[in-house]
Amino acid sequence: MIIVGEKINTSRPGMGEAVEQRNRALIVRTALDQAQAGADYIDVNAGTFPKDEAVHLCWLVETVQSELDLPLCLDSPNPEALSEGMKRHNGAPMINSISLEEDRFKAVLPIVASQPCEVVALCMGRASMPTTVEDRVEVGKELVAKLMEAGISAERIYVDPLIQPVSVDVQMGIAALGAIREIMKAFPGVKTICGLSNVSYGLPERRLINRSFLALAMSYGLSAAILDPMDRRLMGTLLAVDMLLGRDEYCEKFIEAYQEGRIVEA
Amino acid sequence: MIIVGEKINTSRPGMGEAVEQRNRALIVRTALDQAQAGADYIDVNAGTFPKDEAVHLCWLVETVQSELDLPLCLDSPNPEALSEGMKRHNGAPMINSISLEEDRFKAVLPIVASQPCEVVALCMGRASMPTTVEDRVEVGKELVAKLMEAGISAERIYVDPLIQPVSVDVQMGIAALGAIREIMKAFPGVKTICGLSNVSYGLPERRLINRSFLALAMSYGLSAAILDPMDRRLMGTLLAVDMLLGRDEYCEKFIEAYQEGRIVEA
Repeated sequence: MIIVGEKINTSRPGMGEAVEQRNRALIVRTALDQAQAGADYIDVNAGTFPKDEAVHLCWLVETVQSELDLPLCLDSPNPEALSEGMKRHNGAPMINSISLEEDRFKAVLPIVASQPCEVVALCMGRASMPTTVEDRVEVGKELVAKLMEAGISAERIYVDPLIQPVSVDVQMGIAALGAIREIMKAFPGVKTICGLSNVSYGLPERRLINRSFLALAMSYGLSAAILDPMDRRLMGTLLAVDMLLGRDEYCEKFIEAYQEGRIVEA
Repeated sequence: MIIVGEKINTSRPGMGEAVEQRNRALIVRTALDQAQAGADYIDVNAGTFPKDEAVHLCWLVETVQSELDLPLCLDSPNPEALSEGMKRHNGAPMINSISLEEDRFKAVLPIVASQPCEVVALCMGRASMPTTVEDRVEVGKELVAKLMEAGISAERIYVDPLIQPVSVDVQMGIAALGAIREIMKAFPGVKTICGLSNVSYGLPERRLINRSFLALAMSYGLSAAILDPMDRRLMGTLLAVDMLLGRDEYCEKFIEAYQEGRIVEA
């Protein structure tokens, strides 16, 4: 499982202030803590500052990478912020995200094509949100084809099936899960990624639902997740599922995480 | 999901004494509590008393059914105990279990055939424990064929793929999961069932591993599980997974369980 640490996001408590006040120490610690907990990428998102998003995102890129040797996930729908952030980034980042929406696709594609970066391709329809498995696979197919035409290899593409709340329609969970399976089958080499928290919107015990959804998504073939790696119950589920799916030889990673206090049962 | 409540088992703390001392109140309460928590069947097992197993099992059947209108799961490899227990049982119980081991098959088959009961068919080889998916499917196939030849309809059969510890071989989880999927595909109408706790034997944080395995097994098609329905974290996972797989219209069962305090997140 590829883990993208989601905590450096200005919509999260304390993070907006930390960015505005240039609180280097807090940002760096949040990045290091997530890396220590198992993150492979550190997401950076300054989306709550529409006017200064590019400036803030650049500061985040430079601040995090000054102390941590991990690739970042530049998380914005804003082409300028993505382009400027990429210029400050050491090595190739993950770009989150591109979609079929025409203006966005046109503006983000050259950024993605300019470097051997990875890219999240969002299964958002041109006019509406996807509902069924078929909707998602169709949009995913078009996105993957267009990206590959532009020279982006399959291995660089992470398709996000767009998770929608089961409280709105209880079939939304299985629609996203089915899409993960179909996309992994239809496009060899392409990866899948998603955030977890949308699925539980409007329901009680959200973290339980998110954890359970992670286990299911992994069994349907999910390659990567955007999550809080410092949530020890969530990481416990992730490591247990990886082990139960036979991907943790001698249960080494699970036992090591347990010994280091990185997971928790109850 | 069909839930078989596992708590009335003389190998569990306090239960041996309760049976020996004919502690009706404790046995009845343990049965009622499990029913309240969502059990569809109450397992009864007196296996720690090899000499008096039949007598004790009969007492358990009569005691539980005197206060609770649920079918029981008669849990014993001992044909005499199964046969005597069945005579005391109101309606048709679940018989747990039959296997291909020759003496056991011969002795248990007539008991199962004598009533419209359900039966757990254990994927135990004649000479050895199964290791691969194929081992399990092969044994399952032979068992299902033999049971159906004897007039037991598919709907009455629960195949147990036999869960083995991932600490012994990390492929054991995926072997059992794969067997669940293949058996559900190969034998239409037949159900699958398993216990959870073997999978985590020898590892820390066993309840976390068991819960994660339940989520995976459900996503691979498991029909029934033998578990502790009073474990609110386990039941939380079960209800969340059922909901995420689209089987809980309007999330009603999940929300109701939450409101009644039957599940817990953290």
